[in-house]
Amino acid sequence: MLSNQLHNGLETAKLLWSRIPNSEDGEVDGGSLLRNSNGNTVESLDYEVIENYAYREEQAQRGKLYVGYYVAVKWFLALLTGIGTGLAAVFINISVENFAGWKFALTFSIIQRSYFAGFVIYVLINLILVFSSVYIVTHFAPAAAGSGIPEIKGYLNGLDIHGILLFRTLIGKIFGSIGSVGGGLALGKEGPLVHTGACIASLLGQGGSSKYHLSSRWLQVFKSDRDRRDLVTCGCAAGVAAAFRAPVGGVLFALEEVTSWWRSQLMWRVFFTSAIVAVVVRTAMGWCKSGKCGHFGSGGFIIWDTSDGQEDYSFEELLPMAVIGVIGGLLGALFNQLTFHITYWRRNYLHKKGNRVKIIEACLISVITSAISFGLPLLRKCNPCPESDHDSGIECPRPPGMYGNYVNFYCGKDKEYNDLATIFFNTQDDAIRNLFSAKTIHEFSAQSLLTFLVMFYTLAVVTFGTAVPAGQFVPGIMIGSTYGRLVGMFVVNFYKNLNVEEGTYALLGAASFLGGSMRMTVSLCVIMVEITNNLKLLPLIMLVLLISKAVGDAFNEGFYEQQARLKGIALLESRPKYQMRNMMAKEVCRNQKVVSFPRIVKVADAVSILQSNLHNGFPVIDHVRNGETLVIGLVLRSHLLVLLQSKVDFQHSPLPCDPAGVSKSIRHNFSEFVKPVSSKGISIEDIHLSSDDLEMYIDLAPVLNPSPYVVPEDMSLTKVYNLFRQLGLRHIFVVPRASRVVGMITREDLLIEDSEDPASVELHSTSGASSI
Amino acid sequence: MLSNQLHNGLETAKLLWSRIPNSEDGEVDGGSLLRNSNGNTVESLDYEVIENYAYREEQAQRGKLYVGYYVAVKWFLALLTGIGTGLAAVFINISVENFAGWKFALTFSIIQRSYFAGFVIYVLINLILVFSSVYIVTHFAPAAAGSGIPEIKGYLNGLDIHGILLFRTLIGKIFGSIGSVGGGLALGKEGPLVHTGACIASLLGQGGSSKYHLSSRWLQVFKSDRDRRDLVTCGCAAGVAAAFRAPVGGVLFALEEVTSWWRSQLMWRVFFTSAIVAVVVRTAMGWCKSGKCGHFGSGGFIIWDTSDGQEDYSFEELLPMAVIGVIGGLLGALFNQLTFHITYWRRNYLHKKGNRVKIIEACLISVITSAISFGLPLLRKCNPCPESDHDSGIECPRPPGMYGNYVNFYCGKDKEYNDLATIFFNTQDDAIRNLFSAKTIHEFSAQSLLTFLVMFYTLAVVTFGTAVPAGQFVPGIMIGSTYGRLVGMFVVNFYKNLNVEEGTYALLGAASFLGGSMRMTVSLCVIMVEITNNLKLLPLIMLVLLISKAVGDAFNEGFYEQQARLKGIALLESRPKYQMRNMMAKEVCRNQKVVSFPRIVKVADAVSILQSNLHNGFPVIDHVRNGETLVIGLVLRSHLLVLLQSKVDFQHSPLPCDPAGVSKSIRHNFSEFVKPVSSKGISIEDIHLSSDDLEMYIDLAPVLNPSPYVVPEDMSLTKVYNLFRQLGLRHIFVVPRASRVVGMITREDLLIEDSEDPASVELHSTSGASSI
Repeated sequence: MLSNQLHNGLETAKLLWSRIPNSEDGEVDGGSLLRNSNGNTVESLDYEVIENYAYREEQAQRGKLYVGYYVAVKWFLALLTGIGTGLAAVFINISVENFAGWKFALTFSIIQRSYFAGFVIYVLINLILVFSSVYIVTHFAPAAAGSGIPEIKGYLNGLDIHGILLFRTLIGKIFGSIGSVGGGLALGKEGPLVHTGACIASLLGQGGSSKYHLSSRWLQVFKSDRDRRDLVTCGCAAGVAAAFRAPVGGVLFALEEVTSWWRSQLMWRVFFTSAIVAVVVRTAMGWCKSGKCGHFGSGGFIIWDTSDGQEDYSFEELLPMAVIGVIGGLLGALFNQLTFHITYWRRNYLHKKGNRVKIIEACLISVITSAISFGLPLLRKCNPCPESDHDSGIECPRPPGMYGNYVNFYCGKDKEYNDLATIFFNTQDDAIRNLFSAKTIHEFSAQSLLTFLVMFYTLAVVTFGTAVPAGQFVPGIMIGSTYGRLVGMFVVNFYKNLNVEEGTYALLGAASFLGGSMRMTVSLCVIMVEITNNLKLLPLIMLVLLISKAVGDAFNEGFYEQQARLKGIALLESRPKYQMRNMMAKEVCRNQKVVSFPRIVKVADAVSILQSNLHNGFPVIDHVRNGETLVIGLVLRSHLLVLLQSKVDFQHSPLPCDPAGVSKSIRHNFSEFVKPVSSKGISIEDIHLSSDDLEMYIDLAPVLNPSPYVVPEDMSLTKVYNLFRQLGLRHIFVVPRASRVVGMITREDLLIEDSEDPASVELHSTSGASSI
Repeated sequence: MLSNQLHNGLETAKLLWSRIPNSEDGEVDGGSLLRNSNGNTVESLDYEVIENYAYREEQAQRGKLYVGYYVAVKWFLALLTGIGTGLAAVFINISVENFAGWKFALTFSIIQRSYFAGFVIYVLINLILVFSSVYIVTHFAPAAAGSGIPEIKGYLNGLDIHGILLFRTLIGKIFGSIGSVGGGLALGKEGPLVHTGACIASLLGQGGSSKYHLSSRWLQVFKSDRDRRDLVTCGCAAGVAAAFRAPVGGVLFALEEVTSWWRSQLMWRVFFTSAIVAVVVRTAMGWCKSGKCGHFGSGGFIIWDTSDGQEDYSFEELLPMAVIGVIGGLLGALFNQLTFHITYWRRNYLHKKGNRVKIIEACLISVITSAISFGLPLLRKCNPCPESDHDSGIECPRPPGMYGNYVNFYCGKDKEYNDLATIFFNTQDDAIRNLFSAKTIHEFSAQSLLTFLVMFYTLAVVTFGTAVPAGQFVPGIMIGSTYGRLVGMFVVNFYKNLNVEEGTYALLGAASFLGGSMRMTVSLCVIMVEITNNLKLLPLIMLVLLISKAVGDAFNEGFYEQQARLKGIALLESRPKYQMRNMMAKEVCRNQKVVSFPRIVKVADAVSILQSNLHNGFPVIDHVRNGETLVIGLVLRSHLLVLLQSKVDFQHSPLPCDPAGVSKSIRHNFSEFVKPVSSKGISIEDIHLSSDDLEMYIDLAPVLNPSPYVVPEDMSLTKVYNLFRQLGLRHIFVVPRASRVVGMITREDLLIEDSEDPASVELHSTSGASSI
């Protein structure tokens, strides 16, 4: 009788649930985050449809109008993400350009009198900028170190790494980037901008940062990890779009490189965000054209226009281009391997010694970088300026205080330039512009380029992994364009008749190194085309990328994958491992002890179960008539903790609270079950209950997910993996094989026509859709 | 005792199965296609992992070397697809350009003497070309009619429409396109090229066409729908890349518009295919430069270079651009609606009357099109040539036999041109080039553009749906660029100071109409940029597309979706319908009678079961100890038919054939279970068995899929839909709720490190991976 009643209550709950319309996507879930059982700060995210009763109740109260509001908010937040990321990018660029501009202007004016004083000033300014960056990162926002892309990749794969999407991380990233890039280290600001975009998106998605009292109640609409994840994807695309002024490249980067799940509806919103960024950046640059932004303007956003370069190519050139691809693959794979080992050593030995060591390390590298970039050009003899360059608009030597080719540095005569200083004693953006430049054949000597390649490669390897925000795009382009230009020089000497531009080879070299290191394909291709504004080279870039990626893949994984592995971010790849085909589902959970809850649980039992293990989800098992058991759903630790903390659902009797209608038993707002991103949530240790409370009972029926996905125990693990990975799940129940089949679902059963008529939807929801 | 033995046999099968390594992807399946229960020729494809014993046996025999071979073949076939599609595109383009070139050259030479004779010749040539096209399509390759994109979309969504990927369809498509486009109808050759690419890919994927003795045994490696599907995706991308010379656009088109499932590994191969196409097309065009290809050369592949157009835009221009977006959305939605109704009428009334009606219809439309395009310009007064155009390199009137602006047609004086003839009495490619052209302000009068817009829009609506291959890209660009140029003319008149080019507005108009009709976003954006070779307009194109798609979406579905619906191609969309959240799994199969097989089935019973229904898959239910039943797997109708036809697996006793080891019982090669694409397969009516045969038994254990995906009966249909759609399934078992949970699978359980050592893989497969 008792179990019968329990069963009836459950049936009522199901019936009610089947009546309640859901949100726009039908894919909103309880958004629970909890510490993993391995105890570190990497947490799992839930992208599945977890429809517990509280959620459904909330949806029912709001209805259709709410759905429209929800969609509007999604687009509005994408708009804000675009604007915010665009403004952040403009701010970083203006700051970096101004710091670097002042620095070089001051140094150049001092070296007119004393090269030593100039050197000291140059080193000091760089040191101060790098010190401020590393100080901000170590003391204020430790999660802002590095590029941030592996962490964002992890987040979008379903892992929440503690701290990466906080407000302080955002601030640390922005100001840290300004210091580290302005301070002339061998790193870029593009990776950090992707992280910045993701942070802005995440903060908007959870309605601000409550810790800094910047939250807004009316923005707190997103209650599921899925919606937040989508917005973070928009943020990533916005970051790339802003960093490279490459809106389409941004969309593709988000698609190819960072997201793990992608829906075509999302593409449309990501595209919108990127377009907004393009408009914001263009507006800001238009505003700066009148000289209001100091040194920003001629340099600034990286667009290395090569549209006046080589128009066409001949088939003989395909061989040297293939050589560039191979070099890119080899150097890229070597770069990944070296950074992997150095970062491993740093994480496990050096950085364990505390913040002081991190600061000293970064400062030391800053001094070395400054010394090399200032000192090496001094050792290099100047070359006389080439003749008859007046028609191309390129002056030699370049006028003081300007950007351009042919830097006069430590030269005896006026009409001379120092080719090593042209690339080394310069901001990276300008150095790349010089390397990419057309109509400057024989500007650089092979010796200078080789010297620069070796030194900069070493610096880039050593610098990555210090406790400052650091991107790898621009250093990669520097390295690649140097050896590309070297190959280009040989081509110019070898095929004398052709209209070959060394700058084109530099561009292909840049593409090849990025391909060999990061292993991106389509997105990198589009980014390269967008930043160089030259569509004609697209087939060549594709060719070079194909080769360099294939060569690199023969040696190791991509840069971001390696860094993610190093940081303990275990990404679920899109395809199952080879061994899984030989395993069954029950084998992987062979050593597990399944801890389950009954439907009505005593509070004391619940507390002791939660204390006894670190599981995040528990099956709920009910006893039905004739003593048989039935799995009635999944309850999440985080939801149980909310129930235990609030105590309002406690009841005295071990009977279902209200067999006639479950609705009255819900005293919780769904939003109470939602936890902010990047925080730790409640723990069982935080909950203190009186002995009276411990004697009471809770009915779990309203908070459980009534139908988690199940697999039979002898299913191949490959298939289980596909299920888990494709649907973004967090828990799968392994159950015994069924004894009978109730029905088969095929394509035709799922082709239900969308009824446009709201009345018929109402009808369906009342009648339980019996007519279909 | 008996059931015990049966059970043991099954266990042995499972054990064996768990030892056998699988192919590279682990996602190869039995590739079964069967007629649907509604009896039409739309068939379902299987993208799931169906690992029956025969398949696993085959894999086991081949081992690791085979996996490498398999991967190499995949890439080799992608290479061949790229080369084939590129060559097909070059062939179509050369033919069309030559037919059109001869036609116009002849007509222009005749109208020097008599306009009437010229008109007759013009009409006749067009009629002959269109007649040959419609004759080929109606009598030889009916599946080649239309654009083919909805069908390919259906195929990649899991539906095999009979005939669309046959060799004869490929031939019909190529020659039909040449006739219909060369014959001057208001349609394009780009959609058909996508179909062509898909056909080439599909034929390569199944190793040629057996009907025409073009098959090659060693190419028949792909035995699963999944691998074929991936190759067809490559073919689609190749088609777009070849049609527009837009390799990145091709990749994105395949991703955004046609595929339903996408893996990042596939992106890499699709990218490769597109790059190959770009190289092939470029090589062919280089070869044609020396004049070997007749009229092909100056026209040919659509690249409408607008890079000498407007460089910049001011904020005042955003308003007229937004207006273009709105017009595009409205006209695009109207276009979709009109073509939908006309095609509906054609399918249900006109085309039911037979091929003769189809031929007459196409010929009639050809005559009308010719008459309008020749006649309307005659009614238009000529304008005097503009002055001082010598510096821009544009001659007025254009020299005879050349392509260009300012066509002298029915003009009194030499220095005059007919603006309507410039766009109407011309090939579409040249008309678009003229509409896009910069530095030709005031070339067209508003009256001419309006006349052309109305007439061409009507012709395009009427022409689509006739029995010829027909793409909608180029007509869409024609329509859009006409009203775009109209708006541009007003902008030039209104904002007199600005450096506005009418050609830029024409380009934006083209983007807006395509956005409003086809509702593509990123891919269309990239295609527009690639065909106009002007990256600076990207943000504007994005803006216009955002508006036109949003406006269009307010009225109806996209063009391809509507056409697919009309053709009965029921696409499973990526997101579940709204009503599904109120339904449970068991509700949709409430009226089903589940027909199941026992493990050992009498041949007579099997035949009668197969005759009694049209189901494609059947659960297999075994009796175990103490009389309980157990669902042991899924058997496909197609596999059963192979067993019944070959008879080699028949046995006399109703006992498991070989309880000690199932391997001996397999007398089938896995390839026998594979059926070619687009064919009907065996039917139960084709199988004739003697009465002795009918008394025998078959053991189904070796051919069944031991673990199909299952869902509990009260799971929300939304979740069932996600499972079905995301994994590309064909059958899901609905089973009762489980009574207990054996284990829980979480992220950590699935993070198994890839063991590089083959020895350890061996160990795992022997020990059943007990150490993990």
